[in-house]
Amino acid sequence: MQRSVGVLGAGQLGRMLALAGYPLEVSFRFLDPKSGSPAGQVAEQLVAGWDDGAALERLAREAEVVTFEFESIPEPAARRVSELTPVRPPPEALAIAQDRLVEKNFFSELGIPTARYVNVTSLAELESAAREIGLPAVLKTRRLGYDGKGQYLIRQESELSPAWQAVGGAPSILEAWVPFERELSQLAVRGIDGTTAFYPLVENHHDKGVLRLTIAPAARAGEELERAARDAVRKIFERLDYVGAFALELFEVDGKLFANEFAPRVHNSGHFTIEGAVTSQFENHLRAILGLPLGSTALRGYSAMVNMIGNVPEPAELLALPDAHVHLYGKGPAPGRKLGHVTVCAPDAATRDQRARAACQVVGWLPQKPPF
Amino acid sequence: MQRSVGVLGAGQLGRMLALAGYPLEVSFRFLDPKSGSPAGQVAEQLVAGWDDGAALERLAREAEVVTFEFESIPEPAARRVSELTPVRPPPEALAIAQDRLVEKNFFSELGIPTARYVNVTSLAELESAAREIGLPAVLKTRRLGYDGKGQYLIRQESELSPAWQAVGGAPSILEAWVPFERELSQLAVRGIDGTTAFYPLVENHHDKGVLRLTIAPAARAGEELERAARDAVRKIFERLDYVGAFALELFEVDGKLFANEFAPRVHNSGHFTIEGAVTSQFENHLRAILGLPLGSTALRGYSAMVNMIGNVPEPAELLALPDAHVHLYGKGPAPGRKLGHVTVCAPDAATRDQRARAACQVVGWLPQKPPF
Repeated sequence: MQRSVGVLGAGQLGRMLALAGYPLEVSFRFLDPKSGSPAGQVAEQLVAGWDDGAALERLAREAEVVTFEFESIPEPAARRVSELTPVRPPPEALAIAQDRLVEKNFFSELGIPTARYVNVTSLAELESAAREIGLPAVLKTRRLGYDGKGQYLIRQESELSPAWQAVGGAPSILEAWVPFERELSQLAVRGIDGTTAFYPLVENHHDKGVLRLTIAPAARAGEELERAARDAVRKIFERLDYVGAFALELFEVDGKLFANEFAPRVHNSGHFTIEGAVTSQFENHLRAILGLPLGSTALRGYSAMVNMIGNVPEPAELLALPDAHVHLYGKGPAPGRKLGHVTVCAPDAATRDQRARAACQVVGWLPQKPPF
Repeated sequence: MQRSVGVLGAGQLGRMLALAGYPLEVSFRFLDPKSGSPAGQVAEQLVAGWDDGAALERLAREAEVVTFEFESIPEPAARRVSELTPVRPPPEALAIAQDRLVEKNFFSELGIPTARYVNVTSLAELESAAREIGLPAVLKTRRLGYDGKGQYLIRQESELSPAWQAVGGAPSILEAWVPFERELSQLAVRGIDGTTAFYPLVENHHDKGVLRLTIAPAARAGEELERAARDAVRKIFERLDYVGAFALELFEVDGKLFANEFAPRVHNSGHFTIEGAVTSQFENHLRAILGLPLGSTALRGYSAMVNMIGNVPEPAELLALPDAHVHLYGKGPAPGRKLGHVTVCAPDAATRDQRARAACQVVGWLPQKPPF
């Protein structure tokens, strides 16, 4: 059908978007300052800065729609492109997701429950916020926070000043510590015509703030949780006239959900959908932004995704696992870097759990509190 | 893992190989005389003739293994490459598959049942062959026959001379007409260490000699048929010390199987494996030629693949079908040209049949003798 998509950012999310789009005859051009990027290895890439007006203009003029795959893209870049060609999801979603204070205010305005939070711009305000919210609490910088970066758990008053120093006095929020039982995410997608599709709730396990494991579907996610998660996403979708794939991260506490943050893009906790759902989040994102019918978000059996962080085991070991699907991103090893993931599938939860354990062992990471 | 594969030919089979290999960090370079090819749109392509020694040498030297995706690659090209780097499957398999007489002799030597056939090099020999085998019979050129090309059904004696003229007096075989009930194919893959994996038998439907529909798994394919098909493939694998994906086309007549031809490569009747099997034929081909463990060939439910030939319907119509997976090859429309395929999946045969019918309707082709 010869459709053309421009993408701001060229990381692994962009790489998987391209691989999902090629079978639909979608062509891609990526823009990213880093050459040799994961997406640039499988598609054309403009190596240019986010402030390179000529490159942004070229990306915009030669694509029928532009999207983004990277959270921290300067909003002015997305706005510049949107003057020339449609940008989906709307740049406003990016702007909100980039600022924790704006994001929390946005949740609050929509009546979506979150942990209590207070805006903090000085040590004095931090001290007053701690008195208001109580400790433990988490100090989070408003900007550039992802994968646990820019977050400091404060247990007692003596840690307030060191935490304020640790964030370098950057504008932040102090958030009440939520003694959550688990983290869930609600993946969803919305088309240009407003059609909305939800994947079942999935369960996420982090280590040092970085996602390590997603289990699909989440166990014991009854109708009530599902309804709460979907209602929250629907409110966001309608408020933003959203188009594309979307992820809402949620904490579960005593059968209630608290919104943590949202990602206005395909999301790591949705990688399992490549093999574990009828239509992957990547294909559905493309279908959405290109105005095509959305694909089914039903699961294909049970699955689990394990991230490979810092290093990758011998691929033969992973490929020898039953129903294991390996995705490597073409990145060099480095501590804390997401280099790939493996998804295991199974016809039932018990087999999936067994396969997930085996995959974790090969990857060299085991959850502290084994969910299986 | 940064593996490198060279591929002779850059058609849709090569394109789907590349898309299966990228998640494993396999890089690809294709060689094909036609620029703008399906694989060249998603990977690097050397645009060069099959007799371009320098290009063949470059392909060989910069890849750890070279494979082929196109049946009619001149065997000398494969041989030349194999002097410099491993070629898998073995070029001998290509040479056999390119010559119907050699192929039939090969089947016969291995004790694999085929239709009766006689070598024909002149009209006089054709007449004598017709007396020996009886009519109806099929005149098939030894070389360059695929998708029904170079084949002429002869019903009565008066058609012998016109048929001989139609093949231009090219070296041919006359083959007894097999009143087959259906055509099946046995897809399989063999690793470097001899490990062999078989996909379940699938059922194929052709129109004017071109594959239009594959149904997986084939209905009523009992243990006996399966054993016969696998035994035939095993004999071929062992005789050739074969490595890679493979397809054996078979006619079923009164519960017996007759080998028609084999393809020493990924095969159109195996495209359904992308969504319909745990591991696709494309990924398994790469795993095999790279010395990696083979993936499971178990099916994921029921599926059917419908080819899009000559033209492609509005993609939105296909994408609106439930559990339909669209694969377009990046080719311009032309009569008889394979432009893409759509695979429908379902949890049971009845639903699959219903979805296959719907897909056939959108594609604009319905089998004369509906299998569902």
